[in-house]
Amino acid sequence: MEAGGSTDGWPLDDRGVAYGDGLFETVLLRDGAPRLWEAHLARLARGCEVLGIPMPAERRLAAPLVDAPSGFSVLKLMLTRGSGGRGYAPPETALPRLRWQLSPFLPDHARWTVGVGVRHCRMRLGIQPVLAGLKHLNRLENVLARGEWSDADTAEGLLCDHEGRLVEATCMNLFWQRGGRLETPRLARCGVAGTLRAELLERLPIEEVDVVPDVLVSAEAVWLGNSVQGLWPVARLDAAGGEVLQRWSIGADHRRLQAVAHEPLGYPTRFDD
Amino acid sequence: MEAGGSTDGWPLDDRGVAYGDGLFETVLLRDGAPRLWEAHLARLARGCEVLGIPMPAERRLAAPLVDAPSGFSVLKLMLTRGSGGRGYAPPETALPRLRWQLSPFLPDHARWTVGVGVRHCRMRLGIQPVLAGLKHLNRLENVLARGEWSDADTAEGLLCDHEGRLVEATCMNLFWQRGGRLETPRLARCGVAGTLRAELLERLPIEEVDVVPDVLVSAEAVWLGNSVQGLWPVARLDAAGGEVLQRWSIGADHRRLQAVAHEPLGYPTRFDD
Repeated sequence: MEAGGSTDGWPLDDRGVAYGDGLFETVLLRDGAPRLWEAHLARLARGCEVLGIPMPAERRLAAPLVDAPSGFSVLKLMLTRGSGGRGYAPPETALPRLRWQLSPFLPDHARWTVGVGVRHCRMRLGIQPVLAGLKHLNRLENVLARGEWSDADTAEGLLCDHEGRLVEATCMNLFWQRGGRLETPRLARCGVAGTLRAELLERLPIEEVDVVPDVLVSAEAVWLGNSVQGLWPVARLDAAGGEVLQRWSIGADHRRLQAVAHEPLGYPTRFDD
Repeated sequence: MEAGGSTDGWPLDDRGVAYGDGLFETVLLRDGAPRLWEAHLARLARGCEVLGIPMPAERRLAAPLVDAPSGFSVLKLMLTRGSGGRGYAPPETALPRLRWQLSPFLPDHARWTVGVGVRHCRMRLGIQPVLAGLKHLNRLENVLARGEWSDADTAEGLLCDHEGRLVEATCMNLFWQRGGRLETPRLARCGVAGTLRAELLERLPIEEVDVVPDVLVSAEAVWLGNSVQGLWPVARLDAAGGEVLQRWSIGADHRRLQAVAHEPLGYPTRFDD
């Protein structure tokens, strides 16, 4: 590990930019205290194991916390394999490089209360079980999917895998309720296994399922969530072509899951509808 | 476009490292003159179009050539979308960032003459038609595949896609001769469409095919090639587990394709067997 870690830039030959050879975590902080910290460390450790990058000591990862502003902020940690190696071949002894960014953050209260509009994306996620679940630096699919819309009343885009199964949104995990049961896509083939998703799977009986996107229109409630934004109720679902597929009134079902999701984040757990 | 382009490092927030949001080209130079330059420009332009990154003017891309050493060298051009945007969302006006590295290069003469050993990789390439053929910065699959072996007498690893079709080697394209006919994998679903491959497809009747890897053992001749290394005859093919699947004597068939491939690169076109 390079000494310390820093907010400097990246050397020209860093493998992070050359190949996306690394991982990142985006952590919500409140008054400098990280939320779901253990889950972020666990996912980073899993990624390090798969990529063969030594996991940094927790004290290195936590070092930037002392500089965090008061109130809510976001810590982005980026860990690459560092420089070196011959082409794609990893160097025999990796000297990983840790960089971070701290940014003030204001969660979007309106998205919690009135919910969001989402649309299906045309982009399909490639199936790659080896990398599934990890928050690695190869995110071109997400970038291209996010480029599919620019209207302000569409908050997110939903992604299916190459074989048509529902997976996630471009930067959030997806949850829904059908016949009173909570479900979320299984992420064995692709997608990012969010830390808020992991927390919800621990706290509630949520089934991980392989389904086609059609199940959403008959769901009683749909949500998107991640550990920075919290949980957004979905009020409208559009097809990739723009036509409205379904609308939902935000109600008690939505509020119940929001309460569970927001508690560990330090976000509001009650909304007066 | 950022003014000029340079050999500086990357800013902390460059989207190249954050998401692999960019492209690269690796160009063989002889006495500062680029080989297959038009093909490199064409592939970069295709990548820029797919990613929505403005294609730099040729004079910017060619600027580093004046600093090239005499003899053979390699110019690595890296082009990213630059900084900015909100998360995955590309910035409304991208200010792409161009960086380069110039390195002296000595081609491996022994690999041209006696050929190489290769093996099948366990890693499967995800299917992503949108990105297929491009030399983009999301290369974790290649890095992990290249990490599958470290013995010096295995020069490359062969990759199939998620559905079992033969695609390429970790950093080279694959060619073979069956019943007198030259073939190479079709790259409509994944893989990098090399500039030497493009040149060979122009110069010779080579059929692009979808095949399983078993076809290789019955081939009369197999080659790996790219625009930096030239064309390597394959002398031995191993399974992913290490057992030898086939051996080939390097002969006249191999030399014929090498002559065509090496001519535009300025490499030897005749080998005294």
